[in-house]
Amino acid sequence: NKKVPITVAYGDGIGPEIMDATLRIIMAAGARIEPEVIEIGEKAYLEGFSSGIRPEAWESLRRTKVFLKAPITTPQGGGYKSLNVTVRKTMGLFANVRPCVSYYPFVKTKHPKMDVVIVRENEEDTYGGIEHWQTREVTQCLKLITRPGTEKIIRYAFEYARAYGRKKVTCFVKDNIMKITDGLFHKIFDEVSQEYPDIEKETWIIDIGAAKLVDTPEMFDVVVMPNLYGDILSDVAAQMTGSVGIAGSANIGESVAMFEAIHGSAPRRAGQNLANPSGLLLAAVQMLVHIGQNDVATTVQNAWLKTIEDGIHTYDIYQEGVSKQKVGTREFADA
Amino acid sequence: NKKVPITVAYGDGIGPEIMDATLRIIMAAGARIEPEVIEIGEKAYLEGFSSGIRPEAWESLRRTKVFLKAPITTPQGGGYKSLNVTVRKTMGLFANVRPCVSYYPFVKTKHPKMDVVIVRENEEDTYGGIEHWQTREVTQCLKLITRPGTEKIIRYAFEYARAYGRKKVTCFVKDNIMKITDGLFHKIFDEVSQEYPDIEKETWIIDIGAAKLVDTPEMFDVVVMPNLYGDILSDVAAQMTGSVGIAGSANIGESVAMFEAIHGSAPRRAGQNLANPSGLLLAAVQMLVHIGQNDVATTVQNAWLKTIEDGIHTYDIYQEGVSKQKVGTREFADA
Ligand SMILES: CC(C)[C@H](C(=O)O)[C@@H](O)C(=O)O
Ligand SMILES: CC(C)[C@H](C(=O)O)[C@@H](O)C(=O)O
Repeated sequence: NKKVPITVAYGDGIGPEIMDATLRIIMAAGARIEPEVIEIGEKAYLEGFSSGIRPEAWESLRRTKVFLKAPITTPQGGGYKSLNVTVRKTMGLFANVRPCVSYYPFVKTKHPKMDVVIVRENEEDTYGGIEHWQTREVTQCLKLITRPGTEKIIRYAFEYARAYGRKKVTCFVKDNIMKITDGLFHKIFDEVSQEYPDIEKETWIIDIGAAKLVDTPEMFDVVVMPNLYGDILSDVAAQMTGSVGIAGSANIGESVAMFEAIHGSAPRRAGQNLANPSGLLLAAVQMLVHIGQNDVATTVQNAWLKTIEDGIHTYDIYQEGVSKQKVGTREFADA
Repeated sequence: NKKVPITVAYGDGIGPEIMDATLRIIMAAGARIEPEVIEIGEKAYLEGFSSGIRPEAWESLRRTKVFLKAPITTPQGGGYKSLNVTVRKTMGLFANVRPCVSYYPFVKTKHPKMDVVIVRENEEDTYGGIEHWQTREVTQCLKLITRPGTEKIIRYAFEYARAYGRKKVTCFVKDNIMKITDGLFHKIFDEVSQEYPDIEKETWIIDIGAAKLVDTPEMFDVVVMPNLYGDILSDVAAQMTGSVGIAGSANIGESVAMFEAIHGSAPRRAGQNLANPSGLLLAAVQMLVHIGQNDVATTVQNAWLKTIEDGIHTYDIYQEGVSKQKVGTREFADA
């Protein structure tokens, strides 16, 4: 029953409100954690830390190895690096796990039976920031796909499928064009999948695969893909369940893990007790499982589901005739 | 009333059937064209032309400058280059125009009001085939974005919007990560859009932009984007209208243009009088407009629409209760 220290960042915009709500809920459910608050985002950027994160914050992350992070704002203009990408790369968070599940009829969606987990490679592809001006008129960016990186993410996808009793892992690539890079990803998918004869496997060229996903998400279960495709299609899949606001995500590394909502900091809604804390809360549920507190995770998940099913809804998922009460961030957390 | 010579390729798989149907329909509508048939695809590949196209075929294309192309099959295995990409690059077909329109209730769709034109850059991005193995475990691919290429496609999108009375052009990029390459695309979008004060403009980060497109396509009108995003999202958008089988596309260059369905050669359906010729037929309508035969284009478009509205449907869009007759490729063309 020892408390697990975790690093917590309240972030910018709606961040503080949804983090408050999230911590309040999981503490009430009995989370055995000790939050250690760091400051990241806008303030750190403007103090001159181009990554948006101060040295002490890194120190905390390295110590606790678990990071619950609210969305942050990156100031406009050049010179600022994406904090998400910096943390992912510095800490080696190679897998980005984004469950996209429909809660119909409680949350309105055109895809009532959707239950897809996007497993996105999280370090390679065009996310290296390796770009240059070759001439004043020609720019280039380097896409990277490696064997070790790809083996890790594909194996993770299959292990995840096995652990969660999922039946199929699908791979999306564009290897009719990128025969070497996406070709390598596809080849390693074929190799690694042989170690998992209990799990079905399938590969789609990303263009038609994405079309199928958007049309018939029931065809898919776990879908693994390179970084950039995963970035785009996880937003698409989350939105298809009704709102990008109810999807959490886990960024998993060999020693450190970061948990966050997939939406942004929505500065225009900040400070108004409006925001839906569900994305961050469901990320916190993933965190509780990660630190072995499955009992608390289940309590929180069920409480959340009951609140949604009771029709106690924030503005973004409010539906005339289905919702019973339109509530703010605080009242949603109370419920 | 001189006849315009056009180059025609019957392609592989279902290609010959849908090309037959398409030519029969447009000739019956009075198309003033003189088809010049070339052979491309599987046979040419297997004869040893790695591009899938013989020297005489290039000669025809260079002469007629108009190419109506059925889908082809690229043999499995390495060494074969994509014919589409080769033609696009060799002929400088810089714009890929893909209208995605819903025909609800005649064609089933979850997005009855959709009317989006994807204008996809068609030569640059990761389509250069510049890839290499850096070590036995590390592969790289080069993404290219240039000022001249980007100016051309953005200007094309605005000119298209103006010519077709469309109100808004939206740009999708990922310039919070690819600050130089996608950043250049975004910057040029901002510059060029100022020459078109009569047209609304908007930019979205591709992840959330794609989520919006899939959720609320009515928000969009003309959407311009780099090659790879356009590849993925045009399949997505076409499928959202009910079927990738009813979308045509125009590949436009400074002197040559190629018109094709966006779907593939579907070898398993070949030779069975099953395939829906609509994608290629609507591409032929784009071709007729391109060669200035708007009268014929309108006749064909209206005849097609009437057939769809009369419920005369091929298997892929057949709906119990809405369709009146399930027909084959030939009968659809007859109607
Ligand atoms: C903020 C941005 C850098 C990030 C990404 O592209 O990965 C975000 O879109 C996400 O998906 O977490
Ligand atoms: C066949 C393939 C090379 C092509 C592409 O990626 O451009 C196709 O998917 C398309 O969209 O026309």
